[in-house]
Amino acid sequence: MAQVGIVMGSDSDMPVMAKAADILDQLGISYEMRIISAHREPDEFFEYARTAEEKGFKVIIAGAGMAAHLPGMCAAIFPMPVIGIPMHTTSLGGRDSLYSIVQMPTGIPVATVAINGGANAGILAAKILATSDAALLQKLKSYTNTLKESVIEKDKRLQETGYKNY
Amino acid sequence: MAQVGIVMGSDSDMPVMAKAADILDQLGISYEMRIISAHREPDEFFEYARTAEEKGFKVIIAGAGMAAHLPGMCAAIFPMPVIGIPMHTTSLGGRDSLYSIVQMPTGIPVATVAINGGANAGILAAKILATSDAALLQKLKSYTNTLKESVIEKDKRLQETGYKNY
Amino acid sequence: MAQVGIVMGSDSDMPVMAKAADILDQLGISYEMRIISAHREPDEFFEYARTAEEKGFKVIIAGAGMAAHLPGMCAAIFPMPVIGIPMHTTSLGGRDSLYSIVQMPTGIPVATVAINGGANAGILAAKILATSDAALLQKLKSYTNTLKESVIEKDKRLQETGYKNY
Amino acid sequence: MAQVGIVMGSDSDMPVMAKAADILDQLGISYEMRIISAHREPDEFFEYARTAEEKGFKVIIAGAGMAAHLPGMCAAIFPMPVIGIPMHTTSLGGRDSLYSIVQMPTGIPVATVAINGGANAGILAAKILATSDAALLQKLKSYTNTLKESVIEKDKRLQETGYKNY
Amino acid sequence: MAQVGIVMGSDSDMPVMAKAADILDQLGISYEMRIISAHREPDEFFEYARTAEEKGFKVIIAGAGMAAHLPGMCAAIFPMPVIGIPMHTTSLGGRDSLYSIVQMPTGIPVATVAINGGANAGILAAKILATSDAALLQKLKSYTNTLKESVIEKDKRLQETGYKNY
Amino acid sequence: MAQVGIVMGSDSDMPVMAKAADILDQLGISYEMRIISAHREPDEFFEYARTAEEKGFKVIIAGAGMAAHLPGMCAAIFPMPVIGIPMHTTSLGGRDSLYSIVQMPTGIPVATVAINGGANAGILAAKILATSDAALLQKLKSYTNTLKESVIEKDKRLQETGYKNY
Amino acid sequence: MAQVGIVMGSDSDMPVMAKAADILDQLGISYEMRIISAHREPDEFFEYARTAEEKGFKVIIAGAGMAAHLPGMCAAIFPMPVIGIPMHTTSLGGRDSLYSIVQMPTGIPVATVAINGGANAGILAAKILATSDAALLQKLKSYTNTLKESVIEKDKRLQETGYKNY
Amino acid sequence: MAQVGIVMGSDSDMPVMAKAADILDQLGISYEMRIISAHREPDEFFEYARTAEEKGFKVIIAGAGMAAHLPGMCAAIFPMPVIGIPMHTTSLGGRDSLYSIVQMPTGIPVATVAINGGANAGILAAKILATSDAALLQKLKSYTNTLKESVIEKDKRLQETGYKNY
Repeated sequence: MAQVGIVMGSDSDMPVMAKAADILDQLGISYEMRIISAHREPDEFFEYARTAEEKGFKVIIAGAGMAAHLPGMCAAIFPMPVIGIPMHTTSLGGRDSLYSIVQMPTGIPVATVAINGGANAGILAAKILATSDAALLQKLKSYTNTLKESVIEKDKRLQETGYKNY
Repeated sequence: MAQVGIVMGSDSDMPVMAKAADILDQLGISYEMRIISAHREPDEFFEYARTAEEKGFKVIIAGAGMAAHLPGMCAAIFPMPVIGIPMHTTSLGGRDSLYSIVQMPTGIPVATVAINGGANAGILAAKILATSDAALLQKLKSYTNTLKESVIEKDKRLQETGYKNY
Repeated sequence: MAQVGIVMGSDSDMPVMAKAADILDQLGISYEMRIISAHREPDEFFEYARTAEEKGFKVIIAGAGMAAHLPGMCAAIFPMPVIGIPMHTTSLGGRDSLYSIVQMPTGIPVATVAINGGANAGILAAKILATSDAALLQKLKSYTNTLKESVIEKDKRLQETGYKNY
Repeated sequence: MAQVGIVMGSDSDMPVMAKAADILDQLGISYEMRIISAHREPDEFFEYARTAEEKGFKVIIAGAGMAAHLPGMCAAIFPMPVIGIPMHTTSLGGRDSLYSIVQMPTGIPVATVAINGGANAGILAAKILATSDAALLQKLKSYTNTLKESVIEKDKRLQETGYKNY
Repeated sequence: MAQVGIVMGSDSDMPVMAKAADILDQLGISYEMRIISAHREPDEFFEYARTAEEKGFKVIIAGAGMAAHLPGMCAAIFPMPVIGIPMHTTSLGGRDSLYSIVQMPTGIPVATVAINGGANAGILAAKILATSDAALLQKLKSYTNTLKESVIEKDKRLQETGYKNY
Repeated sequence: MAQVGIVMGSDSDMPVMAKAADILDQLGISYEMRIISAHREPDEFFEYARTAEEKGFKVIIAGAGMAAHLPGMCAAIFPMPVIGIPMHTTSLGGRDSLYSIVQMPTGIPVATVAINGGANAGILAAKILATSDAALLQKLKSYTNTLKESVIEKDKRLQETGYKNY
Repeated sequence: MAQVGIVMGSDSDMPVMAKAADILDQLGISYEMRIISAHREPDEFFEYARTAEEKGFKVIIAGAGMAAHLPGMCAAIFPMPVIGIPMHTTSLGGRDSLYSIVQMPTGIPVATVAINGGANAGILAAKILATSDAALLQKLKSYTNTLKESVIEKDKRLQETGYKNY
Repeated sequence: MAQVGIVMGSDSDMPVMAKAADILDQLGISYEMRIISAHREPDEFFEYARTAEEKGFKVIIAGAGMAAHLPGMCAAIFPMPVIGIPMHTTSLGGRDSLYSIVQMPTGIPVATVAINGGANAGILAAKILATSDAALLQKLKSYTNTLKESVIEKDKRLQETGYKNY
């Protein structure tokens, strides 16, 4: 039984959504990934959103671009947190996706991450689950530590080589 | 049996939506006006959108603000034209509503009018119905003529009084 | 006698406008495609817009970029629906085209679709005609069904191969 | 015979357009002010633009808001300079007007001034006429001198009173 | 021991933050509300963020405006979810706050809600806690039901009175 | 003695400015082209702007990007029309250049053309000179006619080949 | 001999510029405040900027709105730091001022503060002077401490009264 | 003992930050360059910012992209000037970085330069140090002179070759 649902409206969003899945894999969190369009198959979408709780999902990660309705419509139906990933768009740079996801009306929040922020959506899902899972919280702290060490490593290299040879 | 459905997600949109209804009244077009939220009552919304065709609607006019999903979700279900009215918003001036309504993905167009363009939504609905209704087309031409005459009247007053006394 | 007029101000808009024509071809809707500039040949443009009704057009699809006046000027003259397609632009991403098309004053609506939304303009024209053409409405429902099945197909492939091999 | 045509699409633009007329009055430049809408009365508009040259206009000042087509359509027909004034708008602050006026395609420039820049439109018209009118050029230099002296006066007051009492 | 920390950098954010607190009160969730500025008292801020876990917080709700660093800096230190509320701002409408909060780099997500979205931040916090609290999940469903009923009530009133008397 | 001064602050603007010069060449208008930076050589710039009138310039075309001060500073000193060309910029698409040029305060207008609108700046300069030069006005009408014929030619080709082979 | 020059192009900027002066007064830094317009009196402006160094200025604080050239032109002439304050504007919210000030080309930086950031301009000037003035640095640290204590005070009040009575 | 600290949160910012270092090298100003992330290693960051004064830094140059907190957090701790460089970003062009850096609240200014303005950050740091270092001021004047001569050289070449061969 998956803890997290990952859903996108179009397979063009896959490269970004894959980063969320990669993080969940890394942290040992089970998930189900689907391509379901709220616009092109509203019945399938409703069925998906309505049965998400009984399938055991605790969090849904939904990515969408342009007039991005998928995350908000998930949040209208699924009672636990929905994380929205606004996709970068050619003409408006992702502002359209961002505004369509983050500017939700009172009562129906979507936890929005950065434009194309696939990895951060995965991390946020993990942080949510970690509120009741001490082992996962520990893994997240290790992950954070890895981030820290990677920066320290880069700085060390800079001190050794100087910026001209970096 | 109403020809046009007018729907808004919140009664705060009423002043703008009323302008659409006023135009339809003026042109003798029957309509049904509803307050239905895709976010707060998704089941009621689906029922509404799914039965719109059998109720005889030829056009739906949907208004929404911020992360405005109502017009797009109508267009995902109702097979005839959906006209979207982006509401003005305090923080983003209605850009959020506009992008959420106009930037629909391929396959699911929403006929978008100006921010707060309630009257124009009504006129566009009439123009759509006029493609198969010669009498309505005639009424629209009269309406357009009235607009023209009102400008001519204003110009005449300007020529008579001068701009300082206008 | 064509039902739809497709018009663009510059042949650089052709790749986008062609998508509208492709949809109309697919759905068996007759159309006439023209390159006519409201700015560079205002007389020819006026002649075009004024005779559109008598040529039998029920809808005009007009595409334009930057200070995009073509759709709005069509709507000022042609009494039935005008669909406007805002072209993507290098410097402003199409915001200039979008605002010039969608922000029409009261009385003269343009049914605006997404930036570069050529296919959606074609579909919207079809939806308008379908308000009085049951056979066309049926074709549109089939088209929508094809969209749905294409998404279901992609999801099926994802379930079979997993996202890493997708 | 007026040297300058001042034209606006709606009398709501009057407060801004009046500032252009005020400047022309001050500098002794003859003008004709009209309310003519390219959208609501295209025939009247075309007649206006086509006869502008024979009426003796050397410059047209056109103001418009939202999807502001009036200046660009004047420039498509009138062969001498057209000055465009983008009107401030509630939702988009005048960006819509500005982009619709300034982003003209190659061949059809509009000399655009600031949002609500009525006075500057008048001054620009005068500067254009002054390219062949030495007396007017002299008046413009006096006007500029007045601007300078008004700033010097203010600075003097500041030095005398200090900023706390200014 | 509070489950949620509510923190703002300035007491001018209080009207928005109070809405988050109101929701938590309504749902019976314990919280601690603080005014702490990452910019004006970095030591106090660090102490706050570092001790948040041991104080028992499962979620932090942080609101900030303009160059809004408070939510992101909380997320850099606190290992569980941080919800960011971008404040409306006079000059940029809250775009500055929104971008400063939502555009976090990989590794440090902030769950961003709408500009001035205080109530939604409270609801999102509750949804996060509800992933491991069935009773709270039940309360959230009741809350959602209340939202639904309020819309149905309004629609009923509209049907009874008509839009002109609404 | 040149009638038009063309000035740019950096030779990176040359491709756009060259289009203005090309138009002037085509229409037989004399000009002087200079690279002068108001920021990097303010004394040289002041000397340039102050002597422009005595050199016989009737119009200055000034192009600049980013915080584009060159056109506005020309307009502060030169008493006849200054045409400003906002350069496209990588980060802000030319909005920075556009706002820095068009949003001039009362008293000091800059006749602004489209982002990267080099050719239109040349045409606008010609239109300004044509207010007192009937022969040039005739040439401009011919130029306009050429634009018209080029569109007619393209439309003819479209009618012959169809859009699929265009 | 004043250490800091404060200059604005228009007395409408006074309320913002006064905040810079207030800070300098508080910290005992001498300054001279002037109203000088680069656009309306370029000679006076040049004289001002050229003599600023010999008058003993170490820093210039320049405020301007719309196409804000004053700070950049100061920076082109004065060899030490120029701090630019972008004024809020009605139509574009100050984006025009901000871009015109911050987007300076290589070689001519302006140290830009927030829109309407008068007080911060004063503090930044003080920080610059404090790089070589230990006593002033000490005063700045006290000032910072006051800011901190004011926040602590507010938080204390919140803890005592609760947010509902705050 | 370095006079200037250069710090970036990610080594992807190196190409821009290197330009600041190049300028400092050219002008003989000592500096220390570090990669330190306020988000990924808050403890290391705090240690860095707190010890900056005792290490002898007079200025910190901090570059960051997206939700750019590094410059503002440096300014919250370091008592002398912090110069912020907003990085260009793919989706929002650097507006996110710019707003996150420049829109600081009262009390904590960041001296912001243009998007990707690495060289200008270096020059601004030099200008700050030159307020108390006459020899450095002299070097800056020479640098400015070089800029001027480079433009004069380009103009000379243009006059010799004409723009078509430039």
